[in-house]
Order: sequence, then C-alpha cells, then structure tokens
Amino acid sequence: MKQIEGGVTAATGFEAAGIEAGVKYQNRKDMAIVYSTVPCKAAGTFTTNVVKAAPVQWDKDIVENSDFVQAVIVNTGIANAGTGKQGLEYCKQEAAKAANLLGIPEKAVFVGSTGVIGKQLPIDRILAGIEKLVVAKDHSIQAGKDAATAIMTTDTVTKEIAVEIEISGKKVIVGGMSKGSGMIHPNMCTMLAYITSDICISKELLQEALSTSIIDTFNMISVDGDTSTNDTCLLMANGMANNPEITEKGAEYEQFCKALNVVNTYLARKMAGDGEGACALFETTVYNAATKQDARILAKSVIGSNLTKAAIYGHDANWGRILCALGYAGVTFDPENVDIFVQSKAGQLQLCKNGVENVYSEEEAAKILSESEVTVLVDMKMGSETATAWGCDLTYDYIKINADYRS
Amino acid sequence: MKQIEGGVTAATGFEAAGIEAGVKYQNRKDMAIVYSTVPCKAAGTFTTNVVKAAPVQWDKDIVENSDFVQAVIVNTGIANAGTGKQGLEYCKQEAAKAANLLGIPEKAVFVGSTGVIGKQLPIDRILAGIEKLVVAKDHSIQAGKDAATAIMTTDTVTKEIAVEIEISGKKVIVGGMSKGSGMIHPNMCTMLAYITSDICISKELLQEALSTSIIDTFNMISVDGDTSTNDTCLLMANGMANNPEITEKGAEYEQFCKALNVVNTYLARKMAGDGEGACALFETTVYNAATKQDARILAKSVIGSNLTKAAIYGHDANWGRILCALGYAGVTFDPENVDIFVQSKAGQLQLCKNGVENVYSEEEAAKILSESEVTVLVDMKMGSETATAWGCDLTYDYIKINADYRS
Repeated sequence: MKQIEGGVTAATGFEAAGIEAGVKYQNRKDMAIVYSTVPCKAAGTFTTNVVKAAPVQWDKDIVENSDFVQAVIVNTGIANAGTGKQGLEYCKQEAAKAANLLGIPEKAVFVGSTGVIGKQLPIDRILAGIEKLVVAKDHSIQAGKDAATAIMTTDTVTKEIAVEIEISGKKVIVGGMSKGSGMIHPNMCTMLAYITSDICISKELLQEALSTSIIDTFNMISVDGDTSTNDTCLLMANGMANNPEITEKGAEYEQFCKALNVVNTYLARKMAGDGEGACALFETTVYNAATKQDARILAKSVIGSNLTKAAIYGHDANWGRILCALGYAGVTFDPENVDIFVQSKAGQLQLCKNGVENVYSEEEAAKILSESEVTVLVDMKMGSETATAWGCDLTYDYIKINADYRS
Repeated sequence: MKQIEGGVTAATGFEAAGIEAGVKYQNRKDMAIVYSTVPCKAAGTFTTNVVKAAPVQWDKDIVENSDFVQAVIVNTGIANAGTGKQGLEYCKQEAAKAANLLGIPEKAVFVGSTGVIGKQLPIDRILAGIEKLVVAKDHSIQAGKDAATAIMTTDTVTKEIAVEIEISGKKVIVGGMSKGSGMIHPNMCTMLAYITSDICISKELLQEALSTSIIDTFNMISVDGDTSTNDTCLLMANGMANNPEITEKGAEYEQFCKALNVVNTYLARKMAGDGEGACALFETTVYNAATKQDARILAKSVIGSNLTKAAIYGHDANWGRILCALGYAGVTFDPENVDIFVQSKAGQLQLCKNGVENVYSEEEAAKILSESEVTVLVDMKMGSETATAWGCDLTYDYIKINADYRS
C-alpha cells in the first residue's frame, strides 16, 4: 500500500468541484460535487441521533433502495436539519436538478448539508450552485481539493487522502475527504466523509467493509461530545479498476479493508486534531483491557473529558483527571492496577503506577504535553485488548467559535 | 415550611468551624468540622466512579456499619484520591485524632477531602488542623458559614441553607452546606454536601429519604460531565427536635422529605450556577416525556451539551443545538412534535414549534438569554412526565481555571 496525491478524485473515473454559491457567506467555496463517470455501488453509515437531518434521510433511502449512485452534492453554511417536510422537499429538488443536468436518475444523487440547524436552505442559490458545479467538475487533483475546501465549516484545514493498493494484479485506489470540527462525537460515523474507490466489489461487502471500519476510526473521535444530526459517511465504488469483482471475503477483501482503514483513520485523526479551537491532537490508547469494547469505552472517556482536555491545553500533567475519566466510563476495573503514561515526539513519561503517583519531572511532562500531537497511554492490566481514540484540547477558541457561531 | 438563617449549625445540637490549616494554600480557610453534641443516625450516598477516593471508602463503611456518628472532618486542596493504601491510612489517622479529642469512637467520624487527585495529604498539617477545629467549633450561624467557606475549592460563593418545619408539634430543622464547582456530574450524589437535622427518625427511613431525594436534586446537575472520585452527600440526624421517632412512612415522613428536597434542590442549583467560570445558571425543564426517566435523561443531555452551553454564554438562541442534544440523549421521540422555549425574568419566547423554527425576534431572545438565570423549556408531547436539570454556561474562565488548576 502506498499513499498517493489527491483525495476523492484520485480513483479512476471520479470527478469533483468546489464553487462559491453564496449559501450563507460570501467569498468562500461552499458547494461541492463528487461525480463518477460510470454508475457506482454505494455504502453509507449515518448519525444515530433521533433528530436526523433531511439529507441523512434522503441518503439513507438511497443506500438502502437504489441500485446505483453516481453523484454527491454538498453544501456548507446551513445543515438542513430541524427543517421538517420543507427540508426533505429541498433534498428532492437538489437531486432532481443534478440528475437532470447529469442525465442520471434522481435517486442516484446523494445530497449533504452542514452548518446551522433550523434554517431552511436558500434553494434558488443552491440550484444555481448545482449548475455551476456540473460545469466545473473534472478529474484533477485540484478539483478534489476544491471540493474538500468547499465542505469546510469551522475547519481550518482540508482533510483528504488517497492510497493505492494492488488487487488481483490491478491497481486499486481508495481516496476520501471529510469535514468536521464542532458537534463531533460520531456515533455511527462522522459529520461528513466521502470515500471513493475504483474497486470492483459487491454492494454487500462494500457496506460491510465500511460498517466495520468506522467502529475503530470515525466512531473513536470526539471534539465536544455532541453527536450531530447530520453525520454521514458515504463510500462509492465504481469498479473502474477492473479487478475481478470481490464477492467473498478473502485476501482481496482484507486488502481493501486495510486500505479503507488507512483512509478512514487518517481522516478521523485529522478531524480530531482540527477540532474547533484545538491546539493539539489528543490521542489516547488503552492497553490490556478485559474486552475490546471496554478498551474503546475507556479510551473515548479520556479523550471526552472536558477537565482532561483543558489540562492538555494547559500542558498540565494532571493524571488524576485521566484516572477519574477512566473511573466514570462505566467499565469495571481495579484502580490499583492502572498505569498512565504521556507521550509525544518530545519523549515518554510514566505519571501513575498501580493507581498512585509515579515520581516524575513536571517540567519534562509539560515539555511532552507542549507538542501538537499528544498521546496518553493507559495500561489497565485486565486482559489483552487495545483501542485508540482521538480528541483535542479544550481551548479559549472553542468558546469563542461557539458562543456566536450563528452571527 | 419556612427558610431560616444558617446552614449546618441551624439544627439543635450541631456545631461547626472552619479554620486555616495550610493544606495546600495559605491565607484561606481550608478545613471544616461539623459536630453533633449527641450521637446521630447517618445516611450517605457516594460517587459511582470506579475510582473511589479514600474518604469515600471510609465514609461508606461508616454509613453501612456504624451504629451512630457524631462528627465530620473535611479538608480542601487535596482530594486524597489515587492515593492507595497510604490514603486510607491517613483517613484512619484523621478520624482517630478527632475521636480522641472529642471522646467518641473512631468509627463515629466521617472524613471528606476535595481538591487535586493523586497527591498525598500533608498529614501533620491536617492533624494540627483537627486540633484547631475541635477548639474552634460552636453552634453559631457564623460557625456554619465558616465551615461552608472552608470546604470551597474553585467555588466563588458559599452554599448553605436551612428550613424549619413542624412535625408532631415539634419544631424540626433541616440545614446543609455543599461545595462543588468543577468535576461536577454527580452520578450518585454531588461533590461534597453535608446535611444536618435535629429530626428523630429511623436510620432506614433516613437513608431512604436521602437516596430518593438526590435523584431529582444533586443527580440532575452537571458542570462539565466529569463524575468525580469524591462525590459524597451525608445526612446526619441527631433527634434533638424530640419529635416521636419516625419509623414508618406517612405524613411526618413526607413532611421531612419535602424539607430535605428544598434543601437539596437549593444546594444543587447553587452548585450549578456557581459552576467553574459560569456567568449563568442554565436550567432545563422537559415536559410531557413518555417516562420520568426519559424526562431526566433529556433534561440532563441539554444542560450537558458543550455546544449549547457555549451558545448560552454567547446569548445565542441556537435552538438547533438544543434539539440536537435531545436527539442524541438516547431516548426515542418524534422530532416533529418538539416545542422549545427560552425563559428568564426578562420574558419567555418560543423558538421551535413542532421541530421547526418558530418566528421570533433574535434581539428579544438575546435579551432573555442575558440574565444570570436562564431556563429552557421543552415540550416533548409524548406523555406527561416532567424533570428539571441544572447546569451552567461554558465560558473562557472554565478553560482558564482548568488549564492550570494545579499550578
């Protein structure tokens, strides 16, 4: 497997564009298209929030009922959530417009929205935007980057990646882009992530590969504990790599899963590190938990603790807050067995040994915690299962961004 | 029932003191005693965190196994959590010292600690502090206030209250004090709360009254979602009101429960409103939920949402975040039935009607949200159950306090 340049347009047959439609703000790209020149199989995972945005409802129906898809239209600025029947009607109008221009069925067009909840889309500007997108789309790396830029809200960097593998002698590419900076605590998958591949694979296995992959990637990140109404992860495969169709699990399927996992892990980490206001990516790996699920729950509890996140921001080796967050996670363990370490490229240090303080230099700890990527390692000594979760520090800028996001 | 002056010393036979022991900081009261001149029955509820501070373990044992108690010794600055066997040994030394000076059994002395996790108590200063406390204690209102001051950490105001009721022709007083500003998300009861009463009641009913009361009082507040290792709520009753002992449920028991509920609700609200860095008490009442438990979960989800809390700080009527927080609470409901209102002494305004935006003035909403006590009202239209939860806004000062709490 090797990483290659690009994102959603890296795989054969995929095109994209990002344009200015003036949905909510001026002078920024705010609409994107991803398009495949041939029909794709599609898989998707969506928010578990009871309040599901209109586009989530629209896309879910397509994943479950359409034979193929060929395009995704995304806008930022307004989430089209809390918009009732009118919101769903707008999804249909978007899809119909794109379908008409592209000469494909309405139910082959995914739509996605992110931004403020509770406002209706400015449908005229959206439809005009679709016209521009269809003209602008192409297969270039820059087009993929434009799309990744257009779907950003409070993100500070674009998030895209592509990897190349070889399956049955054929070159296969998996690429993706995502956005997500606040209201990030995915419980099915994350805010918006679009993965494309030219692999030839059955729809069933495509969905299984995605559903499995998100458990330890997108579902292991949290910026603020708020599970969005819009979380959507879509995976489209157009078969243009011309490998023999994968219809059974085996070496080829595993290769694809590994590549998908690399893409999803990269995008998930990138989202966590670019959490609203974040100065640092805050990673936690829990070792030797009794079960895999325990390991996941414990790791997520640590990266989700406001107090721990504030301590990371302050470069303060406050391991008591980490122990406390493990303790309220809902998992049974013996506190007097727990070891806690901090680690970054500046070094590694043990803060807690068997549940009590280990002698360490506060100065050295602060140095380790001053890096832009900080890891907490926890040894539970309860079993042999491991999991990693990703979050970010809690900063003044998080408050600044969210105290007047709508203004 | 009427509210009267004072807190833990309001009931007959209770004394208290707060003194400077130099546990961690200088020039502040940091140790307190609450003492009954006669033996008391005691009830207690404690943190559900797997990591339990040494004093929690000590006190739990007393509630379960001692026939009576007579004193509580509390220090602030260091939590005596994550301190292993040494921490428990220090609890025993504290209790033994107080017992010796007061002429009561060691197992009649509760101990409590709050502050930094993972550091050992400076036991010599603690023991010297106990000597001062025993000398200083008296029945005055000021002594109760001194104790309430001494248990504060990042609190900005003391929290105490007393109410008077009449039971079987006798005057009965219930008073209490509490502290708690950060690491507040009680899941059994809150950080530290000490309630005293001169009521005469059986130990079983005393515990039942407390266990029932905390469900809709202390367990309905959250400052930051972090369930502490030290949460402790103790209720001591010394019988000096001379009412006939309450040994069965009935009108007298109900009267006492009501008074206890007023005390606990007051202390819980006060703790939420004085959350670390808070500018406003943020109350949420959910009406017409399908079950009482649903109502509680929904109300707590709203006051626990970082995004909503930041919006409250920004006086931003971002009802979409409220709807979103209801949606991920884990309760099933129809989003298209939900009504959302904001309310304060500046007025009331409906923001959301049947899941979509209601027409309202942003200016008026901002005015309502600018008050120091802000309420969100949610009508679920699913049943007839109601619950209220209390939190606070998320501010720059929360970050400031917690980025370098230990320094």
